Amino acid sequence: MTGVREPQQERSRTTRRRLIEAALDSFGERGWHGVTVAVIAERAGVSRGAAQHHFPTRETLVAAAVDLLGEAQIDELRAQAAGLPSGSSRIERVVEMVLNLYTGPLFRAALQLWAVAATDEALRDVLVPLEARVGREAHRVTVELLSVDESRAGVRELVQATLDLARGLGLANLLTDDTRRRRQIVREWAQTLELRLAGTSEL
Amino acid sequence: MTGVREPQQERSRTTRRRLIEAALDSFGERGWHGVTVAVIAERAGVSRGAAQHHFPTRETLVAAAVDLLGEAQIDELRAQAAGLPSGSSRIERVVEMVLNLYTGPLFRAALQLWAVAATDEALRDVLVPLEARVGREAHRVTVELLSVDESRAGVRELVQATLDLARGLGLANLLTDDTRRRRQIVREWAQTLELRLAGTSEL
Repeated sequence: MTGVREPQQERSRTTRRRLIEAALDSFGERGWHGVTVAVIAERAGVSRGAAQHHFPTRETLVAAAVDLLGEAQIDELRAQAAGLPSGSSRIERVVEMVLNLYTGPLFRAALQLWAVAATDEALRDVLVPLEARVGREAHRVTVELLSVDESRAGVRELVQATLDLARGLGLANLLTDDTRRRRQIVREWAQTLELRLAGTSEL
Repeated sequence: MTGVREPQQERSRTTRRRLIEAALDSFGERGWHGVTVAVIAERAGVSRGAAQHHFPTRETLVAAAVDLLGEAQIDELRAQAAGLPSGSSRIERVVEMVLNLYTGPLFRAALQLWAVAATDEALRDVLVPLEARVGREAHRVTVELLSVDESRAGVRELVQATLDLARGLGLANLLTDDTRRRRQIVREWAQTLELRLAGTSEL
């Protein structure tokens, strides 16, 4: 494509994406209060004017970032799941994937936003509906990966508990590396789900 | 006691306590960056000099606050547990208490600190050993309240998972009121623990 001008629309998409990624890195490393749209623009190598054209405020950047995060997580879950065996070893692998969901830099960035949103109504109004949507999607994919029947009593709550546990494990991994302890919990949780979901799974 | 001077030691303890409580309220409401020792002193009705005598930095205040939080939580767990029936309805009540542990203003304050500590090494060095101690204590009390035998395989991990789940539910309750959903999870988790811990409990 040398010598061919990148189409305007494509350029615009690339710029947005670079700004969102720079925003996530910045919030994760420096927190909400240390970061402005100008700081993010500089990190992304985008002019301040262009940045403000795409995202007039930090809140609009956050909304786009949470969307991207949510989608990226779901995509990754699906990609990992595609390589999984069927049969009884599958549950432990799925549990491991789900319980590792919130242990990376994306969760770190999200946590900074949640902490701020707890004391900032404008940001909370942006985050709450987005989080609800991302949460529903994570739930749907987990049900699908576990191949369980949600119409059975208790199944919905066990899937929810699995995702809540994953977030709790994300917190536990925030300040120290909790990998070893988490591995034991994955094993125990997988056995628990196998026992409780026996007969509800279509594996 | 009118006319009798409050002993120096007692006065000093009261001042510390007032500063710690003002610090927790302030961090919970305004986050770490919005709060200085001077702001906390004013809120506590304590002179800036006295505040700095007790707590030269925000970090020292945080250490004292986390200690107090941890103790207050454990004391509350024990107090609530004292009124519980024995027998099979006990597990659900204990699970309810534990899964509600992180849904109040104390967790809100702690989360502000965690978020900052994720990007601030000095605060992290203060928090990590304190959190480890508070975590161990919460674990010990939960084992005691459930009357389970930790030497049995898997019991330790199930208790840990219960506390991790509790923290995840705390996060889920941060921006919206999650009480109704949590109630369903409590019921399901209590049944799960009963099943998994069958034979390990001395109830």
